[in-house]
Parts: sequence; C-alpha cells; structure tokens
Amino acid sequence: MEEFKVVIEGSGKHLHVTREHLDILFGKGFELEPKKALSQPGQYASTQKVDITGPKGTMKGLTIIGPCRKQTQVELSFTDARALGLTPPIRLSGDLAGSPGCTITGPCGTVTIDEGVIVSKRHLHCCPEDAEKYGITDHEIVQVKVGGERALIFDEVEARVGPTHATFIHVDYDEINAAALFSDTVGTVLKK
Amino acid sequence: MEEFKVVIEGSGKHLHVTREHLDILFGKGFELEPKKALSQPGQYASTQKVDITGPKGTMKGLTIIGPCRKQTQVELSFTDARALGLTPPIRLSGDLAGSPGCTITGPCGTVTIDEGVIVSKRHLHCCPEDAEKYGITDHEIVQVKVGGERALIFDEVEARVGPTHATFIHVDYDEINAAALFSDTVGTVLKK
Repeated sequence: MEEFKVVIEGSGKHLHVTREHLDILFGKGFELEPKKALSQPGQYASTQKVDITGPKGTMKGLTIIGPCRKQTQVELSFTDARALGLTPPIRLSGDLAGSPGCTITGPCGTVTIDEGVIVSKRHLHCCPEDAEKYGITDHEIVQVKVGGERALIFDEVEARVGPTHATFIHVDYDEINAAALFSDTVGTVLKK
Repeated sequence: MEEFKVVIEGSGKHLHVTREHLDILFGKGFELEPKKALSQPGQYASTQKVDITGPKGTMKGLTIIGPCRKQTQVELSFTDARALGLTPPIRLSGDLAGSPGCTITGPCGTVTIDEGVIVSKRHLHCCPEDAEKYGITDHEIVQVKVGGERALIFDEVEARVGPTHATFIHVDYDEINAAALFSDTVGTVLKK
C-alpha cells in the first residue's frame, strides 16, 4: 500500500477558554479576535493573550485558541510545566479529569481553575477520506516515523478520525526539538 | 540473544572548559571543585557555574563539567539554544568545527569563543565487555526503544565504545521530555 505521509505540526503552549471565563478575563460579552486560522477546521489562534501562574512561577503571553469551549484547558510542554511547578498528565484535548489547575490572568480579571492543565498526547488528526484509504480507525494507536539527524519513531500516537479533522500530526515543542523537526517535516504513519 | 538494556541519563545544559579559559574565568591556577561524580569514569560536575550569552540573551548558572579539556565546549538543548538566539549543530562531544560561539562569564573574567556550542547527539557509551557481549562497534548507529506513555524508538544513536566508557545512554532534556523519561528509565538497544 502507498505510504501514509502526514505533515507534523508543533503546538506551542496555549489555552482554550469557556465563554464564562472569557467574560471574566476580557470583559462581559468580549469576542476573541481571530489572528490566524489553524489546520483544524474552525480553529484559530486569537490575538488575545493571558498569563498563567503555577506554584513556582508565571508564564506570560499564552495565546487563546478559539472558539470558546465547554471547559477551560491549558496545554503546556513538560519544559513549560516544570518552570511553573506543575506536573500535568499526558492527555488528549478535553480529557481533563484529575489534571492540575492554575491561575489565569487577563486584562480584566483572574480565573483559578481546579483542573485543566495537560501535556498534549501526540495525535494524528485524520479526515474520513484518509482514514478509509489507509485503514485508520478513531482512537487507534499508530506509530509515526521521521527521518533526519534526530530520526525517531514516535509510538503511542492516537488517531482522531472524523469530519471535523484535517489530516495533520500534532506534537509539542519538546517533541519537535527531540526530533529536530524544524520545517513542517513529513512523518510516515505506521500501523502497529 | 539477551536484550541489551541500558539506563538512559538526561544531560542538562553544561560546559567543558580549557585550562586557559578556566584561568580567565576563575583566576590563574584555579582548580575545579568536584561536586558529584558522573557516570562516565573520571568526569564530574563541579561546583563552578558560569553565565552564557548569545545574540538574544543570557542564561545563568551553567555547571562546568571537569576535568579541563582541550577545547571549550557548551552543550545546550534546542530549547536553551533558541532562548539565546543560537542555532547549534547536532554533534558528538569534541566535534566542534563550524559550530557557533558564545560569550562565557565567570567571577573573574569573560571569554568569547568563536565556536563550541553544540546540541549533543544522542549516544550510547559502551564499555568493552558490553560491546563484545552485544556485538556493538565504536561509532555504530543503533536504535533505542523506550516504553511508557510517550513510548518511542530513538534512531541515530551513536555508540562510543572503549575502556573510558561506562555503559549508559545519554540524551538531552528535550529528548527526556519528549519520551517522558522521568526516573532513570531503561531503554533497549536495537541493532539496525
């Protein structure tokens, strides 16, 4: 079968907020201003930034990804998390039970969340057409092989399949650095 | 054959200095004070720390690893390097030609090096007994498989074999974080 090659995107630290928390952070009825469309349909980096505080420090200027979500979620790398004194679990987006909280500070107010800080689990967003073509099912664990000077095979890459997904692999910047993936490198998806 | 399992150690940012540079940084005839023996025979973390400056900033408190070497060498992760505005190549220790320089500041003086900043290439230190037992040759490229939530297979791991080597795998903290190796995890060496 033809190899399943997919662009790998690095996700920097960012957060998603609820409508209620956006009201507190930026003022009642405030709307996020889209700055840049992301690869996943409907998602965008906004111009709005906030500060995140953990037990050991504050990190300034995290971008809010829109649109608003049902639960506020902060995604950090382990490098970022260690600097803040947080030890988040490795989770897919939305799977927040038992994760640590933090304090979020915007221009109009402050929110403290009891849970919601995670390190993103590597994942493959996969549109239905590619899923059918390459035999990938939702939540299947695949491997992703990358070449170059720091060649490696990422294991435990979880596939998310559906019409809301465009086909891209997402990893964080610790993973980008570990594999020296500095220019939208393409990875090869391997079935286990 | 029995699996070749080796402890993976993470190397933080650090540097090695020449006798001449130590004289400038800490004063003529100064001797490094060993603080902690490292896994490789004769190597130690000293109590001496210096600051490193690149085009975009300064990083404080890098530990000097002793004893003195023939050429001063600064080992950073890509996370560290980016913060300083440096773009080092991925190299084994001692292979410094064409790498960027930086400024090193100690309590008694400052040294500017024209080259010497590298990101460490993943490597397997291997004692002669293990090399013979598992059929590993000096400079051979092997893979290292690790399990867990961020399981992966590191490729391009260069073996260094000889009587001055104790058997350990060395990676940097970007790689530690990318593989979630937080407690002296053991990797399995795979022949290619």
